[in-house]
Amino acid sequence: MKLHGFFRSGASYRVRIGLALKGLKAEQAFHHLRKGEQRAPAYLALNPQGLVPSFETDDGTVLTQSLAILEYLEETHPNPPLLPKDPVARAKVRGFALAIACDVHPVQNLKVLNAVKAVTGSDEAMNDWARRTNLEGLEACEALIAHEKGPFCFGATPTLADVCLVPQMVNARRFGADVSKLSRILEAEAACLKLPAFAEAAPERQPDAE
Amino acid sequence: MKLHGFFRSGASYRVRIGLALKGLKAEQAFHHLRKGEQRAPAYLALNPQGLVPSFETDDGTVLTQSLAILEYLEETHPNPPLLPKDPVARAKVRGFALAIACDVHPVQNLKVLNAVKAVTGSDEAMNDWARRTNLEGLEACEALIAHEKGPFCFGATPTLADVCLVPQMVNARRFGADVSKLSRILEAEAACLKLPAFAEAAPERQPDAE
Repeated sequence: MKLHGFFRSGASYRVRIGLALKGLKAEQAFHHLRKGEQRAPAYLALNPQGLVPSFETDDGTVLTQSLAILEYLEETHPNPPLLPKDPVARAKVRGFALAIACDVHPVQNLKVLNAVKAVTGSDEAMNDWARRTNLEGLEACEALIAHEKGPFCFGATPTLADVCLVPQMVNARRFGADVSKLSRILEAEAACLKLPAFAEAAPERQPDAE
Repeated sequence: MKLHGFFRSGASYRVRIGLALKGLKAEQAFHHLRKGEQRAPAYLALNPQGLVPSFETDDGTVLTQSLAILEYLEETHPNPPLLPKDPVARAKVRGFALAIACDVHPVQNLKVLNAVKAVTGSDEAMNDWARRTNLEGLEACEALIAHEKGPFCFGATPTLADVCLVPQMVNARRFGADVSKLSRILEAEAACLKLPAFAEAAPERQPDAE
Protein backbone atom coordinates (compact mmCIF):
# COMPACT_ATOMS: atom_id res chain seq x y z
CA MET A 1 0.00 0.00 0.00
CA LYS A 2 1.19 3.48 -0.80
CA LEU A 3 -0.17 6.82 0.36
CA HIS A 4 0.46 9.88 -1.80
CA GLY A 5 0.18 12.97 0.37
CA PHE A 6 1.62 16.19 1.72
CA PHE A 7 2.48 16.83 5.35
CA ARG A 8 0.19 19.85 5.66
CA SER A 9 -2.77 18.47 3.70
CA GLY A 10 -5.66 17.92 6.10
CA ALA A 11 -7.15 15.23 3.87
CA SER A 12 -3.83 13.32 3.76
CA TYR A 13 -3.61 13.66 7.54
CA ARG A 14 -7.03 11.96 7.88
CA VAL A 15 -5.78 8.91 5.98
CA ARG A 16 -2.55 8.80 7.98
CA ILE A 17 -4.64 8.67 11.17
CA GLY A 18 -6.94 5.98 9.78
CA LEU A 19 -4.03 3.78 8.73
CA ALA A 20 -2.39 4.18 12.13
CA LEU A 21 -5.61 3.44 14.07
CA LYS A 22 -5.98 0.24 12.02
CA GLY A 23 -2.34 -0.68 12.67
CA LEU A 24 -1.53 -0.58 8.95
CA LYS A 25 1.73 0.53 7.38
CA ALA A 26 1.79 2.17 3.95
CA GLU A 27 4.72 3.46 1.96
CA GLN A 28 4.49 7.25 1.62
CA ALA A 29 5.10 9.47 -1.40
CA PHE A 30 5.16 13.24 -1.02
CA HIS A 31 3.82 15.88 -3.38
CA HIS A 32 4.51 19.48 -2.40
CA LEU A 33 1.29 21.41 -2.92
CA ARG A 34 2.76 24.90 -2.74
CA LYS A 35 5.30 23.92 -5.41
CA GLY A 36 2.46 22.56 -7.56
CA GLU A 37 3.79 19.00 -7.66
CA GLN A 38 0.20 17.70 -7.58
CA ARG A 39 -0.20 19.11 -11.11
CA ALA A 40 2.77 17.15 -12.52
CA PRO A 41 1.69 14.90 -15.42
CA ALA A 42 2.83 11.72 -13.67
CA TYR A 43 0.69 12.56 -10.66
CA LEU A 44 -2.32 13.64 -12.72
CA ALA A 45 -2.19 10.22 -14.38
CA LEU A 46 -2.75 8.74 -10.91
CA ASN A 47 -5.26 11.32 -9.73
CA PRO A 48 -6.94 13.46 -12.40
CA GLN A 49 -8.22 15.85 -9.76
CA GLY A 50 -4.63 16.84 -8.99
CA LEU A 51 -5.33 16.56 -5.29
CA VAL A 52 -3.86 14.64 -2.41
CA PRO A 53 -4.30 12.09 -1.00
CA SER A 54 -4.27 9.19 -3.42
CA PHE A 55 -3.96 5.65 -2.18
CA GLU A 56 -2.52 2.69 -4.06
CA THR A 57 -3.68 -0.73 -2.95
CA ASP A 58 -1.31 -3.71 -2.99
CA ASP A 59 -2.27 -4.53 -6.58
CA GLY A 60 -1.67 -0.93 -7.72
CA THR A 61 -5.30 0.16 -7.94
CA VAL A 62 -5.52 3.89 -7.21
CA LEU A 63 -8.21 5.20 -4.88
CA THR A 64 -8.93 8.90 -4.40
CA GLN A 65 -10.80 11.05 -1.86
CA SER A 66 -9.84 10.67 1.78
CA LEU A 67 -13.26 9.54 3.00
CA ALA A 68 -13.57 6.93 0.24
CA ILE A 69 -10.12 5.63 1.19
CA LEU A 70 -11.09 5.53 4.87
CA GLU A 71 -14.34 3.65 4.12
CA TYR A 72 -12.26 1.19 2.06
CA LEU A 73 -9.89 0.67 4.98
CA GLU A 74 -12.90 0.18 7.26
CA GLU A 75 -14.39 -2.46 4.95
CA THR A 76 -11.14 -4.34 4.36
CA HIS A 77 -9.71 -4.01 7.90
CA PRO A 78 -12.77 -3.78 10.16
CA ASN A 79 -10.90 -3.84 13.48
CA PRO A 80 -10.73 -1.59 15.34
CA PRO A 81 -13.91 -0.10 13.85
CA LEU A 82 -14.07 3.58 12.94
CA LEU A 83 -17.85 3.45 12.53
CA PRO A 84 -20.44 2.16 15.00
CA LYS A 85 -22.72 -0.75 14.01
CA ASP A 86 -26.14 0.86 14.19
CA PRO A 87 -27.20 2.61 10.95
CA VAL A 88 -28.44 5.77 12.71
CA ALA A 89 -25.25 6.01 14.75
CA ARG A 90 -23.18 5.48 11.59
CA ALA A 91 -25.12 8.24 9.85
CA LYS A 92 -24.41 10.65 12.70
CA VAL A 93 -20.68 9.90 12.63
CA ARG A 94 -20.60 10.25 8.84
CA GLY A 95 -22.68 13.43 9.06
CA PHE A 96 -20.08 15.02 11.33
CA ALA A 97 -17.17 13.83 9.15
CA LEU A 98 -18.89 15.14 6.02
CA ALA A 99 -19.72 18.46 7.67
CA ILE A 100 -15.98 18.97 7.92
CA ALA A 101 -15.05 17.36 4.59
CA CYS A 102 -17.76 19.04 2.50
CA ASP A 103 -18.49 22.30 4.30
CA VAL A 104 -15.41 23.43 6.22
CA HIS A 105 -12.30 22.07 4.55
CA PRO A 106 -13.14 22.86 0.88
CA VAL A 107 -13.79 26.55 1.46
CA GLN A 108 -10.49 27.13 3.27
CA ASN A 109 -8.14 25.03 1.15
CA LEU A 110 -5.17 26.41 -0.75
CA LYS A 111 -7.01 26.75 -4.05
CA VAL A 112 -9.85 28.83 -2.60
CA LEU A 113 -7.50 30.93 -0.46
CA ASN A 114 -5.39 31.72 -3.53
CA ALA A 115 -8.57 32.72 -5.37
CA VAL A 116 -9.69 34.97 -2.51
CA LYS A 117 -6.27 36.60 -2.52
CA ALA A 118 -6.36 36.98 -6.31
CA VAL A 119 -9.70 38.77 -6.33
CA THR A 120 -9.03 40.92 -3.25
CA GLY A 121 -5.28 41.40 -3.58
CA SER A 122 -5.12 41.17 0.19
CA ASP A 123 -3.47 38.72 2.58
CA GLU A 124 -5.67 40.10 5.34
CA ALA A 125 -8.88 39.31 3.43
CA MET A 126 -7.57 35.82 2.70
CA ASN A 127 -6.66 35.13 6.32
CA ASP A 128 -9.95 36.57 7.55
CA TRP A 129 -11.81 34.25 5.18
CA ALA A 130 -9.85 31.24 6.40
CA ARG A 131 -10.34 32.11 10.06
CA ARG A 132 -14.06 32.76 9.68
CA THR A 133 -14.88 29.66 7.65
CA ASN A 134 -13.02 27.45 10.11
CA LEU A 135 -14.68 28.97 13.17
CA GLU A 136 -18.23 29.02 11.78
CA GLY A 137 -17.86 25.45 10.53
CA LEU A 138 -16.48 24.14 13.79
CA GLU A 139 -19.18 25.94 15.80
CA ALA A 140 -21.80 23.99 13.84
CA CYS A 141 -19.82 20.79 14.43
CA GLU A 142 -19.79 21.52 18.18
CA ALA A 143 -23.60 21.63 18.10
CA LEU A 144 -23.71 18.27 16.28
CA ILE A 145 -21.96 16.54 19.21
CA ALA A 146 -23.12 18.73 22.12
CA HIS A 147 -25.32 15.95 23.51
CA GLU A 148 -23.10 13.01 22.60
CA LYS A 149 -21.15 11.23 25.30
CA GLY A 150 -17.38 11.78 25.27
CA PRO A 151 -14.56 11.78 25.49
CA PHE A 152 -14.37 11.29 21.71
CA CYS A 153 -16.84 12.93 19.30
CA PHE A 154 -19.18 9.95 19.55
CA GLY A 155 -18.42 7.99 22.67
CA ALA A 156 -15.60 5.98 24.12
CA THR A 157 -13.57 5.23 20.98
CA PRO A 158 -12.39 7.29 18.02
CA THR A 159 -14.45 7.28 14.84
CA LEU A 160 -14.30 8.85 11.39
CA ALA A 161 -15.61 12.02 13.07
CA ASP A 162 -12.46 12.35 15.19
CA VAL A 163 -10.30 11.41 12.20
CA CYS A 164 -11.69 14.45 10.38
CA LEU A 165 -11.83 16.75 13.40
CA VAL A 166 -8.19 16.67 14.48
CA PRO A 167 -6.69 17.82 11.15
CA GLN A 168 -9.29 20.57 10.87
CA MET A 169 -8.35 21.85 14.31
CA VAL A 170 -4.74 22.19 13.14
CA ASN A 171 -5.94 24.38 10.27
CA ALA A 172 -8.30 26.37 12.49
CA ARG A 173 -5.47 27.26 14.87
CA ARG A 174 -3.04 27.99 12.05
CA PHE A 175 -5.47 30.60 10.74
CA GLY A 176 -6.05 32.06 14.20
CA ALA A 177 -9.63 30.88 14.83
CA ASP A 178 -10.58 31.18 18.50
CA VAL A 179 -11.76 27.65 19.29
CA SER A 180 -11.65 28.12 23.07
CA LYS A 181 -15.44 27.91 23.53
CA LEU A 182 -15.89 24.63 21.65
CA SER A 183 -15.83 22.47 24.77
CA ARG A 184 -16.93 19.11 23.35
CA ILE A 185 -14.62 19.51 20.37
CA LEU A 186 -11.70 20.35 22.64
CA GLU A 187 -12.50 17.33 24.80
CA ALA A 188 -12.54 15.04 21.75
CA GLU A 189 -9.34 16.53 20.35
CA ALA A 190 -7.55 16.06 23.69
CA ALA A 191 -8.67 12.43 23.88
CA CYS A 192 -7.39 11.83 20.34
CA LEU A 193 -4.01 13.44 20.89
CA LYS A 194 -3.32 11.04 23.76
CA LEU A 195 -3.33 8.21 21.22
CA PRO A 196 -0.08 7.54 19.33
CA ALA A 197 -2.05 6.98 16.09
CA PHE A 198 -3.14 10.62 16.09
CA ALA A 199 0.07 12.06 17.48
CA GLU A 200 2.32 10.28 14.99
CA ALA A 201 0.18 11.31 12.02
CA ALA A 202 0.61 15.01 12.79
CA PRO A 203 2.01 17.21 10.01
CA GLU A 204 5.20 18.12 11.88
CA ARG A 205 6.05 14.45 12.38
CA GLN A 206 6.09 13.66 8.64
CA PRO A 207 9.30 13.19 6.62
CA ASP A 208 8.36 16.03 4.24
CA ALA A 209 7.62 18.53 7.03
CA GLU A 210 9.28 21.92 6.71
CA MET B 1 -39.67 9.88 7.08
CA LYS B 2 -39.37 13.55 6.29
CA LEU B 3 -36.95 15.32 3.97
CA HIS B 4 -36.16 18.97 4.63
CA GLY B 5 -34.92 20.53 1.40
CA PHE B 6 -35.13 23.19 -1.26
CA PHE B 7 -35.98 22.55 -4.89
CA ARG B 8 -32.75 24.07 -6.22
CA SER B 9 -30.38 22.60 -3.62
CA GLY B 10 -28.16 20.05 -5.33
CA ALA B 11 -27.62 18.17 -2.08
CA SER B 12 -31.39 17.91 -1.46
CA TYR B 13 -31.79 16.71 -5.06
CA ARG B 14 -29.32 13.87 -4.37
CA VAL B 15 -31.46 12.59 -1.50
CA ARG B 16 -34.67 12.91 -3.55
CA ILE B 17 -33.07 10.69 -6.21
CA GLY B 18 -31.85 8.17 -3.65
CA LEU B 19 -35.28 7.88 -2.04
CA ALA B 20 -36.93 7.43 -5.44
CA LEU B 21 -34.42 4.80 -6.60
CA LYS B 22 -35.12 2.85 -3.40
CA GLY B 23 -38.87 3.21 -3.92
CA LEU B 24 -39.27 5.13 -0.67
CA LYS B 25 -41.71 7.95 0.03
CA ALA B 26 -40.84 10.73 2.46
CA GLU B 27 -42.87 13.74 3.48
CA GLN B 28 -41.18 16.92 2.25
CA ALA B 29 -40.63 20.24 4.03
CA PHE B 30 -39.27 23.22 2.14
CA HIS B 31 -36.83 25.87 3.30
CA HIS B 32 -36.19 28.72 0.88
CA LEU B 33 -32.43 29.30 0.83
CA ARG B 34 -32.46 32.69 -0.88
CA LYS B 35 -34.94 33.94 1.72
CA GLY B 36 -32.67 32.61 4.48
CA GLU B 37 -35.24 30.21 5.91
CA GLN B 38 -32.46 27.73 6.68
CA ARG B 39 -31.25 30.19 9.34
CA ALA B 40 -34.60 30.28 11.18
CA PRO B 41 -34.23 29.21 14.83
CA ALA B 42 -36.63 26.28 14.45
CA TYR B 43 -34.61 24.93 11.56
CA LEU B 44 -31.25 25.52 13.24
CA ALA B 45 -32.52 23.40 16.13
CA LEU B 46 -32.88 20.55 13.64
CA ASN B 47 -29.68 21.24 11.72
CA PRO B 48 -27.10 23.47 13.43
CA GLN B 49 -25.22 23.89 10.16
CA GLY B 50 -28.22 25.75 8.74
CA LEU B 51 -27.99 23.73 5.56
CA VAL B 52 -30.32 21.51 3.61
CA PRO B 53 -31.02 18.66 3.40
CA SER B 54 -31.93 17.27 6.78
CA PHE B 55 -33.69 13.94 7.09
CA GLU B 56 -35.99 12.82 9.88
CA THR B 57 -36.32 9.09 10.38
CA ASP B 58 -39.63 7.52 11.42
CA ASP B 59 -38.76 7.96 15.11
CA GLY B 60 -37.84 11.63 14.62
CA THR B 61 -34.05 11.25 14.69
CA VAL B 62 -32.49 13.95 12.53
CA LEU B 63 -29.71 13.06 10.09
CA THR B 64 -27.69 15.65 8.21
CA GLN B 65 -25.38 15.67 5.18
CA SER B 66 -26.72 14.22 1.94
CA LEU B 67 -24.10 11.48 1.59
CA ALA B 68 -24.56 10.34 5.18
CA ILE B 69 -28.31 10.19 4.58
CA LEU B 70 -27.79 8.22 1.35
CA GLU B 71 -25.45 5.73 3.08
CA TYR B 72 -28.12 5.35 5.79
CA LEU B 73 -30.76 4.60 3.15
CA GLU B 74 -28.36 2.12 1.52
CA GLU B 75 -27.80 0.32 4.84
CA THR B 76 -31.46 0.24 5.86
CA HIS B 77 -32.95 -0.40 2.40
CA PRO B 78 -30.25 -2.30 0.52
CA ASN B 79 -32.27 -3.00 -2.64
CA PRO B 80 -31.73 -1.84 -5.26
CA PRO B 81 -28.11 -1.21 -4.25
CA LEU B 82 -26.48 2.17 -4.91
CA LEU B 83 -23.01 0.78 -4.16
CA PRO B 84 -21.34 -2.31 -5.65
CA LYS B 85 -20.27 -5.17 -3.37
CA ASP B 86 -16.50 -5.21 -3.91
CA PRO B 87 -14.58 -2.83 -1.59
CA VAL B 88 -12.39 -1.42 -4.38
CA ALA B 89 -15.42 -0.83 -6.60
CA ARG B 90 -17.25 0.80 -3.69
CA ALA B 91 -14.25 3.07 -3.08
CA LYS B 92 -14.25 4.18 -6.71
CA VAL B 93 -17.95 5.00 -6.66
CA ARG B 94 -17.57 6.86 -3.37
CA GLY B 95 -14.46 8.63 -4.71
CA PHE B 96 -16.45 10.01 -7.63
CA ALA B 97 -19.39 11.01 -5.42
CA LEU B 98 -17.04 12.74 -2.96
CA ALA B 99 -15.14 14.49 -5.76
CA ILE B 100 -18.42 16.23 -6.51
CA ALA B 101 -19.60 16.61 -2.92
CA CYS B 102 -16.27 17.83 -1.47
CA ASP B 103 -14.52 19.54 -4.38
CA VAL B 104 -17.09 20.85 -6.85
CA HIS B 105 -20.33 21.57 -5.04
CA PRO B 106 -18.94 23.43 -1.96
CA VAL B 107 -16.98 26.00 -3.96
CA GLN B 108 -19.96 27.00 -6.12
CA ASN B 109 -22.72 27.04 -3.54
CA LEU B 110 -24.76 30.07 -2.63
CA LYS B 111 -22.65 31.02 0.39
CA VAL B 112 -19.38 31.06 -1.56
CA LEU B 113 -20.93 32.82 -4.55
CA ASN B 114 -22.31 35.53 -2.27
CA ALA B 115 -18.85 35.92 -0.76
CA VAL B 116 -17.20 36.18 -4.18
CA LYS B 117 -19.72 38.84 -5.12
CA ALA B 118 -19.17 40.67 -1.83
CA VAL B 119 -15.41 40.88 -2.29
CA THR B 120 -15.46 41.66 -6.02
CA GLY B 121 -18.71 43.63 -6.22
CA SER B 122 -19.28 41.94 -9.56
CA ASP B 123 -21.95 39.56 -10.86
CA GLU B 124 -19.64 38.73 -13.74
CA ALA B 125 -16.81 37.63 -11.43
CA MET B 126 -19.28 35.55 -9.44
CA ASN B 127 -20.70 33.82 -12.50
CA ASP B 128 -17.23 33.26 -13.94
CA TRP B 129 -16.19 31.61 -10.67
CA ALA B 130 -19.25 29.36 -10.70
CA ARG B 131 -18.78 28.39 -14.34
CA ARG B 132 -15.07 27.66 -13.94
CA THR B 133 -15.32 25.62 -10.73
CA ASN B 134 -18.09 23.49 -12.24
CA LEU B 135 -16.24 22.86 -15.48
CA GLU B 136 -12.84 22.12 -13.94
CA GLY B 137 -14.42 19.82 -11.39
CA LEU B 138 -16.48 17.91 -13.92
CA GLU B 139 -13.48 17.55 -16.25
CA ALA B 140 -11.64 15.74 -13.46
CA CYS B 141 -14.73 13.60 -12.84
CA GLU B 142 -14.81 12.68 -16.54
CA ALA B 143 -11.26 11.35 -16.20
CA LEU B 144 -12.28 9.28 -13.16
CA ILE B 145 -14.81 7.31 -15.25
CA ALA B 146 -13.15 7.47 -18.70
CA HIS B 147 -12.30 3.77 -18.62
CA GLU B 148 -15.40 2.56 -16.78
CA LYS B 149 -18.12 0.73 -18.68
CA GLY B 150 -21.37 2.63 -19.18
CA PRO B 151 -23.97 3.60 -19.63
CA PHE B 152 -24.01 4.82 -16.00
CA CYS B 153 -20.90 6.23 -14.30
CA PHE B 154 -19.91 2.79 -13.10
CA GLY B 155 -21.63 0.15 -15.20
CA ALA B 156 -25.12 -1.03 -15.93
CA THR B 157 -26.99 0.40 -12.94
CA PRO B 158 -27.05 3.78 -11.20
CA THR B 159 -24.87 4.30 -8.13
CA LEU B 160 -24.11 7.07 -5.66
CA ALA B 161 -21.85 8.50 -8.36
CA ASP B 162 -24.80 9.11 -10.70
CA VAL B 163 -26.89 10.38 -7.78
CA CYS B 164 -24.28 13.13 -7.26
CA LEU B 165 -23.54 13.73 -10.93
CA VAL B 166 -27.02 14.60 -12.19
CA PRO B 167 -27.68 17.48 -9.76
CA GLN B 168 -24.21 18.89 -10.41
CA MET B 169 -24.88 18.91 -14.15
CA VAL B 170 -27.97 21.04 -13.55
CA ASN B 171 -25.79 23.57 -11.73
CA ALA B 172 -23.05 23.43 -14.37
CA ARG B 173 -25.51 24.25 -17.13
CA ARG B 174 -27.23 26.93 -15.07
CA PHE B 175 -23.89 28.70 -14.76
CA GLY B 176 -23.10 28.28 -18.46
CA ALA B 177 -20.30 25.69 -18.22
CA ASP B 178 -19.62 24.07 -21.60
CA VAL B 179 -19.95 20.37 -20.77
CA SER B 180 -20.20 19.25 -24.40
CA LYS B 181 -16.83 17.43 -24.41
CA LEU B 182 -17.51 15.32 -21.31
CA SER B 183 -18.67 12.28 -23.26
CA ARG B 184 -18.80 9.65 -20.50
CA ILE B 185 -20.52 12.07 -18.16
CA LEU B 186 -23.09 12.97 -20.80
CA GLU B 187 -23.69 9.27 -21.47
CA ALA B 188 -24.27 8.62 -17.76
CA GLU B 189 -26.52 11.64 -17.37
CA ALA B 190 -28.64 10.56 -20.35
CA ALA B 191 -29.01 7.04 -18.94
CA CYS B 192 -30.11 8.50 -15.60
CA LEU B 193 -32.66 10.89 -17.03
CA LYS B 194 -34.46 7.99 -18.73
CA LEU B 195 -35.30 6.69 -15.25
CA PRO B 196 -38.39 8.14 -13.54
CA ALA B 197 -36.51 8.27 -10.20
CA PHE B 198 -34.11 10.88 -11.60
CA ALA B 199 -36.63 12.72 -13.73
CA GLU B 200 -39.17 13.12 -10.94
CA ALA B 201 -36.54 14.38 -8.47
CA ALA B 202 -35.61 17.29 -10.74
CA PRO B 203 -35.81 20.79 -9.23
CA GLU B 204 -38.55 22.00 -11.58
CA ARG B 205 -40.78 19.06 -10.60
CA GLN B 206 -40.81 19.97 -6.89
CA PRO B 207 -43.77 21.62 -5.14
CA ASP B 208 -41.61 24.60 -4.07
CA ALA B 209 -40.19 25.24 -7.57
CA GLU B 210 -40.43 28.82 -8.78
